[in-house]
Amino acid sequence: MTNTPVHSTNAQPAALPDMFSRYRAVLSAAMRRQVSSDRVGVYDLLRYYLGWVDKDGNPCSATEGKALRPTLCLFACEASGGSVGQALPAAVALELIHNFSLIHDDIQDRDETRHHRSTLWAEWGIPKALVAGNVLRIVADMSLNGLGERHVDPERMLGVVNLLAEAYLEMIEGQYLDISYEGRRDIGMVDYLNMIARKTGALIRCSLNLGAMIGARHTATVDAFREFGRSLGYVFQIRDDVLGVWGDEESTGKPVGADIARKKNSLPVVYAMSVASGSDKQLLDETYGRDELDDDDVSMVLEVMDKVRTKEYAHRIAVDHCDAAMRALSAVELGPEFRQQAEELIHFLLVRQH
Amino acid sequence: MTNTPVHSTNAQPAALPDMFSRYRAVLSAAMRRQVSSDRVGVYDLLRYYLGWVDKDGNPCSATEGKALRPTLCLFACEASGGSVGQALPAAVALELIHNFSLIHDDIQDRDETRHHRSTLWAEWGIPKALVAGNVLRIVADMSLNGLGERHVDPERMLGVVNLLAEAYLEMIEGQYLDISYEGRRDIGMVDYLNMIARKTGALIRCSLNLGAMIGARHTATVDAFREFGRSLGYVFQIRDDVLGVWGDEESTGKPVGADIARKKNSLPVVYAMSVASGSDKQLLDETYGRDELDDDDVSMVLEVMDKVRTKEYAHRIAVDHCDAAMRALSAVELGPEFRQQAEELIHFLLVRQH
Repeated sequence: MTNTPVHSTNAQPAALPDMFSRYRAVLSAAMRRQVSSDRVGVYDLLRYYLGWVDKDGNPCSATEGKALRPTLCLFACEASGGSVGQALPAAVALELIHNFSLIHDDIQDRDETRHHRSTLWAEWGIPKALVAGNVLRIVADMSLNGLGERHVDPERMLGVVNLLAEAYLEMIEGQYLDISYEGRRDIGMVDYLNMIARKTGALIRCSLNLGAMIGARHTATVDAFREFGRSLGYVFQIRDDVLGVWGDEESTGKPVGADIARKKNSLPVVYAMSVASGSDKQLLDETYGRDELDDDDVSMVLEVMDKVRTKEYAHRIAVDHCDAAMRALSAVELGPEFRQQAEELIHFLLVRQH
Repeated sequence: MTNTPVHSTNAQPAALPDMFSRYRAVLSAAMRRQVSSDRVGVYDLLRYYLGWVDKDGNPCSATEGKALRPTLCLFACEASGGSVGQALPAAVALELIHNFSLIHDDIQDRDETRHHRSTLWAEWGIPKALVAGNVLRIVADMSLNGLGERHVDPERMLGVVNLLAEAYLEMIEGQYLDISYEGRRDIGMVDYLNMIARKTGALIRCSLNLGAMIGARHTATVDAFREFGRSLGYVFQIRDDVLGVWGDEESTGKPVGADIARKKNSLPVVYAMSVASGSDKQLLDETYGRDELDDDDVSMVLEVMDKVRTKEYAHRIAVDHCDAAMRALSAVELGPEFRQQAEELIHFLLVRQH
């Protein structure tokens, strides 16, 4: 790969690539059709969570997420020769499944806010939030029926249904691994990378795989987008972990050191634990052996992480995955504008601030 | 309908109809294949919940459920002209989805035991139990892939997938209604019947609908089994509610008056609230206004329920639904042995003790 900004350790924060704004309107309209406002009760909770209404059900303009997964899906479909409309039902399903998993994650982690708003369980209690998540999951599945209306034949539709189910199962298995790792101090980088490949990677990989499956005519193209997606999943989650420790509160909604304070087994601590030695290693072990960490503990952990150059390590492996992502696409025919968009996307995922 | 035992208020408790034992072995084997023992971690929790292993993963012989839904599905398939093997993947999916919903129900209701064993959240905590439920849900969906191996064509398979998804959504919407009703004292019989038609009825109806969809050649037959199932759903849940108040602890695993003590909005209290008057009504209102009910409260509520003949009312509407169930089947050609089995089934659901 040539020397693009992707490789620079001190790359400037990238703006959201154009592809996100290009698909936003059509996606938003399709999402709103799928989570219809004709239905009340639990659907009010879902529309709140998606940022469309306030707690009382009145329209509002909370910041919606960046809709990464459906954007990837629509991009893959277009870039591989299909049209946005064809992949739209799959894109909606991906975004709703992602939100379903966030609703349940919030319950698991007892997170009371997300995107600066109360989470469902914090606002309506665990039973309603749990059920709301389950409803969203099935509304997501049902979105795929729209593929039939777009003349995708039954056999390919079953292929799409299965691919999504498998990715979704992998995601949940990854969530289970993540929970199982909690409180453990023997998790190595291999365990960690295996866990994020499932927990975060599976759905991102699937987004590109599905888009290409709907848009492309050749299996090789579908394979290329799937491998592109596999690498992007790592880049995304590694950056997420870095932001979880060093992110700016304003943009991420979390205080600096947040993931240290909650003893999350994310990349920075897994790496620092595995390379620190002597008194540094002892300090990490002692600190993570405690039930609660105070500000001083967090500062000390941050110091050890600096010493073993954790941020630089994270950046290096993220860049490796960026390279792998571009290599995956190099084998397929792609319009130059799509190849450029793919590069912009990779760069954004590597250096994003939120 | 003729004067079968179904109509007798004091009908003898019925033994489990033969159809349950007929399908047990083939169902059990298929279930175990679907929740494979090759996979560890979260799958150990699932196999524990299904009664196959103990907490440490060692084989055990806990009482398994009666597998009502898959039995209904296989019966409908056979009775309508298909073979057991054809409907097996759908039957497995139904039983796994049912168990998924129980795992999440346990979390919602904070139930610590079921079938005399610890529930998943009580044993492993809410996060793992929540994720385990989600895994089971997707393993259930994936069971439907087995239909393809049994030469069900893609179009009919999509029909099955959609029917199950719709029933499942209805079930979850019913659960949400149920939760929304908690603590309210203005729920009438219409609200209640609407809620149980969704929460419990949808999956029971779907079990018979799916079986017939796979086995039958004519739409009219499929329709008949669906309507048969719709009525059975009421019979099943009404009996469940009666057992929740008057059931024997030995057979149901719950103490007498259990659903009163937990202020569950089930048929007996909804009915008693709606017909009691004067001091009885006032007593119910006051009692249900309290945060916790003691044994004396439960006894008083039981007295009021007796006075307004709650048990008799419940039996009467259950019998009405039994009649409707038989009427639904009267329109279709059915071997006499299957018609007799249908009658046995109805009778069992009406008078079962657990």
